[in-house]
Amino acid sequence: MPKISHRGEIMPASPIRKLVPFADAAKKRGLKVYHLNIGQPDIMTPSIFLDAVRKVDLETIEYSPSQGLPGLRKRFAKYYQDNGIPVTADNLIVTTGGSEALYFAFMSCLDPGDEIIVPEPFYANYNGFAVGSGAKVVPITTRIEDNFDLPEISEFEQLVTPKTKAILICNPSNPTGKLYSKDALMKLREVVLKHDLYLIVDEVYREFVYEGEKHFSSLNLEGLAQHVVVVDSISKRYSACGARIGTIVSFNADVMNAALKFAQARLSPPTLEQIGAEAVMDVDSSYFKEVNQEYAARYATAYQALKSIPGVVVPKVSGAFYMIVKLPIDDSDNFCQWLLEHFEFEGATVMLAPASGFYATEGLGKDEVRIAYVLNQDDLTHAIQCLAAALKVYPGVRTTEKATAEPR
Amino acid sequence: MPKISHRGEIMPASPIRKLVPFADAAKKRGLKVYHLNIGQPDIMTPSIFLDAVRKVDLETIEYSPSQGLPGLRKRFAKYYQDNGIPVTADNLIVTTGGSEALYFAFMSCLDPGDEIIVPEPFYANYNGFAVGSGAKVVPITTRIEDNFDLPEISEFEQLVTPKTKAILICNPSNPTGKLYSKDALMKLREVVLKHDLYLIVDEVYREFVYEGEKHFSSLNLEGLAQHVVVVDSISKRYSACGARIGTIVSFNADVMNAALKFAQARLSPPTLEQIGAEAVMDVDSSYFKEVNQEYAARYATAYQALKSIPGVVVPKVSGAFYMIVKLPIDDSDNFCQWLLEHFEFEGATVMLAPASGFYATEGLGKDEVRIAYVLNQDDLTHAIQCLAAALKVYPGVRTTEKATAEPR
Repeated sequence: MPKISHRGEIMPASPIRKLVPFADAAKKRGLKVYHLNIGQPDIMTPSIFLDAVRKVDLETIEYSPSQGLPGLRKRFAKYYQDNGIPVTADNLIVTTGGSEALYFAFMSCLDPGDEIIVPEPFYANYNGFAVGSGAKVVPITTRIEDNFDLPEISEFEQLVTPKTKAILICNPSNPTGKLYSKDALMKLREVVLKHDLYLIVDEVYREFVYEGEKHFSSLNLEGLAQHVVVVDSISKRYSACGARIGTIVSFNADVMNAALKFAQARLSPPTLEQIGAEAVMDVDSSYFKEVNQEYAARYATAYQALKSIPGVVVPKVSGAFYMIVKLPIDDSDNFCQWLLEHFEFEGATVMLAPASGFYATEGLGKDEVRIAYVLNQDDLTHAIQCLAAALKVYPGVRTTEKATAEPR
Repeated sequence: MPKISHRGEIMPASPIRKLVPFADAAKKRGLKVYHLNIGQPDIMTPSIFLDAVRKVDLETIEYSPSQGLPGLRKRFAKYYQDNGIPVTADNLIVTTGGSEALYFAFMSCLDPGDEIIVPEPFYANYNGFAVGSGAKVVPITTRIEDNFDLPEISEFEQLVTPKTKAILICNPSNPTGKLYSKDALMKLREVVLKHDLYLIVDEVYREFVYEGEKHFSSLNLEGLAQHVVVVDSISKRYSACGARIGTIVSFNADVMNAALKFAQARLSPPTLEQIGAEAVMDVDSSYFKEVNQEYAARYATAYQALKSIPGVVVPKVSGAFYMIVKLPIDDSDNFCQWLLEHFEFEGATVMLAPASGFYATEGLGKDEVRIAYVLNQDDLTHAIQCLAAALKVYPGVRTTEKATAEPR
């Protein structure tokens, strides 16, 4: 029997999805499981998406061009222009979700053995794309006590080696909810220019910014046109995760040419979903206001409820719909599995994502979980009540030490 | 400005798609362009596909499980069982097209530097997946004069090195139309077992078999359960190329576990298209009969028309809907571009795929093109008349030598 590849062995299972069998078993036992583990919002997809797909009158569902349907590419360009980002259809390729945009970015910018500096905790699947592409993630640790602010430039520079090819950030961040300001990006800009690196920026949560803050796209960083590669998706923006429509965007023609060749190898993104995506971008702008208000209210609810649990450290966040929370526990992998296997509160339990999978540094995140506040406020409240009740009875709870300092 | 990756540089542009700008220019000049260059059939997608999608009543278009919607996986299993292939839902993962199935197979079975033996000419995008995965394609040449029969086992064995991890075939073959018989596969089986290799088999054209032949799935090769990985897709089967729904199928649990991790990294295949795919598999079996008759008739038309052109060598084929044809020309890349740039016959021209992109051995295929007989018979006839007329006036036509021997 032939052996599977080494990379197939070391490829990490998704920390977000690996507990699914335990959740399924809990549901079979009759429990309600609150899913705070995955960024699958319960927000409705604007109905114009499905309306457009229902009207499709194709005799043959053909391949689209590898770079996406021309109408959709133009519509994406208009979307960016409306958001003050001056890209044209030539600066973007439609991808099968943000995931594929990441894959194209890694493949086009990095060779096996190249290093990419990523602030941790980071979206766990970056590890998967690193293994897939043979690139090496070099983590730079950000801390809950600092509200996950980026470290000083000098700390980044200490990590730069001749192998460093890129810095990757998610702005606003999954999993921390951190929004990087223009000032923070301007500091990164210095490192990028000085060491001639790519700056790959995952902006799929661009619209989800709270507390009066404003998102600044890295595509607008002066002098970085040849350096910035943006990874994007409609998944969260229009609550259409299953559509698998995203974009890779860059002013760097060499990067886009390389990405196009990888795009050609997979022929095309899904045709029907492209048609829906083109339509959904015409949703009334009130949609984003309402959705943002809803998420902001959920964040406030979750923040207050979590703060009231003894020993729980909750950071201030201002974007996306995630937060990393520190719990008074021994091991979040054990805890999250225990919640599904051995715990019940009023007929329910809660599913969380252990944070260890979001760190590259061994041992970090063991007492942290990621919470996605993607449920309506009633469910969210009940879910956090579950968590509070669980922390009272979990055998691995840490009682010998006090919770760490509050974040600034 | 940072440099793109080496693999981004050496990644081949699709030989099927790289002439598209010239075709677009020809269309702008008012010419009709017959597309014999790409496997995009004009056959109608069974209407039950779109009917099912139109009926979708989801409030939120959510991610599906990474391995695909449970109902679709079961429906795929039934499809295979109906075709005498005893797989269950656990033996398959739904992929975003056959392309992603290939990607998962390469990533799960091969490490960078590993070698994979592939009979050439082969589907050009195998090169792309090899570059993407860092694997090395080791070609074993098959010849038009032999109707693209597989070489003797001894020739395969001469290519096996300690780095060899797999043999990859497409059955029936894109681009040659060759159907490998059970006997031919049994010979391959010997090499696979002796050297403990994977046998990756692209069976996306399983249904398209002519002249009374029958397809034998490699999943039914005795004693190879741990070795065979099948790559599959509904793209051609139901003329739904744009749906991007395929499968990777194997009885080898390690391979499937590894593939699942790569699947998790990209979250899920497109949801709406999965719903359509599940529905379309219930199409009446008369569909395949009719489609097969249509392709068989097209093949007969194309074969006769091509045979009648002086200097053209046409092989006998028995599957898929492609053939490699030898033309009396200097260079098929030049010729195919010239057809689009400088030629016109009765207001039309024809787009072909230069065969050089289907060979890994430098210099082979220069006087060959791939023809996809995916057009209705009238268009096909006119397209081949175009080709015949072009060969009378093409400046690079070879007049100094006779066409090579007829195939057996």
